[in-house]
Amino acid sequence: MKKQLSDKVINRLTLYHCILNDYINKNEEIISSGQIASLLKIDDSQVRKDINLLNNSGKSRVGYNVKELKKSIESTLGFEKHKRAYIIGAGNLGMALANYGNFANYGLNIVSLFDNDEKKIGKEINNKKILDVKELPRYVWQHYIDIAILTVPAQYAQTTADFLVNAGIKHIWNFTPVVLSVPYNVQVWNENLMGNFLQFTYDLN
Amino acid sequence: MKKQLSDKVINRLTLYHCILNDYINKNEEIISSGQIASLLKIDDSQVRKDINLLNNSGKSRVGYNVKELKKSIESTLGFEKHKRAYIIGAGNLGMALANYGNFANYGLNIVSLFDNDEKKIGKEINNKKILDVKELPRYVWQHYIDIAILTVPAQYAQTTADFLVNAGIKHIWNFTPVVLSVPYNVQVWNENLMGNFLQFTYDLN
Repeated sequence: MKKQLSDKVINRLTLYHCILNDYINKNEEIISSGQIASLLKIDDSQVRKDINLLNNSGKSRVGYNVKELKKSIESTLGFEKHKRAYIIGAGNLGMALANYGNFANYGLNIVSLFDNDEKKIGKEINNKKILDVKELPRYVWQHYIDIAILTVPAQYAQTTADFLVNAGIKHIWNFTPVVLSVPYNVQVWNENLMGNFLQFTYDLN
Repeated sequence: MKKQLSDKVINRLTLYHCILNDYINKNEEIISSGQIASLLKIDDSQVRKDINLLNNSGKSRVGYNVKELKKSIESTLGFEKHKRAYIIGAGNLGMALANYGNFANYGLNIVSLFDNDEKKIGKEINNKKILDVKELPRYVWQHYIDIAILTVPAQYAQTTADFLVNAGIKHIWNFTPVVLSVPYNVQVWNENLMGNFLQFTYDLN
């Protein structure tokens, strides 16, 4: 049965995973909860509690086995369950996400970008083609999950969302600073950068 | 005395604020908690509970006064307390953030961008100059808060962070997929896009 993990636990486990990648690059085989905790400036006990939620964490007397712990996070968070995604809007933000880290390692396969600018259509970014947005409905096949990553300018956000919904998209990762109005059976995940900033800086006021 | 608001409340209030901006653009004067709840697909009672945390929410028999509710969110979340920020790395992501929404309305003043690419230095993005990163230490003045928004490629993240810390930066908003190692008196806010994605899609696995 699948474990229920809170958003905060998922967030922290992803950060532990980043640290483990870094350790693997440095050929380190063992990591302690204290090393993870100190990089993230959180409590050692918090790290141990999170890792205890995983199956087969690779714990030994001297610490955690880096590769086993990494694999365990991957299987718990479902990195192997691939989701297909399209970036809608090949501006700076869309390009940045097309080039960003190794999304595919986390189960996010960015298949292509879509735009309506003829100067951009046909070009490639990080081996992903920029296609004419008019072609999108043809690309929304019968997959379990197709995600649209919305990176158009704010003034086109709602009309583009309407178009995506009509094309059959059921999941929108919304990077625009606009609250989208969509039918009940469509999920919007708001990236809400300003909300994150305000959370981070709230205690500084 | 300042109210303690949870991250989730701050996140939702920011989204309500987006909706209110949209209502103001449409010259709507009154909004109900039900209208907000339906756009965000959350419970009406949740919206009312959040708004009750604000001072002077502009509530009347017919609903909330849009402008008063907006002002109340702004004063509660401290939009008027301006913070100075620099974008470090004028690539696609840095450019996207320099152009993004109206950060200044939320108290985030992006003063300039910094890069080490001579082809970029001297150019302007959205009225913000791209400066030579070597000049950064001169720009970190005696302000209460100076924030570095880190958007360099992953392989330069740690060395750039070291440089920022030496320049006197105490707050880093980290958009790179790298966990940074910084001294105890420096705060790192990880944007952690992959963590957000995994939270959003966790229930789809």
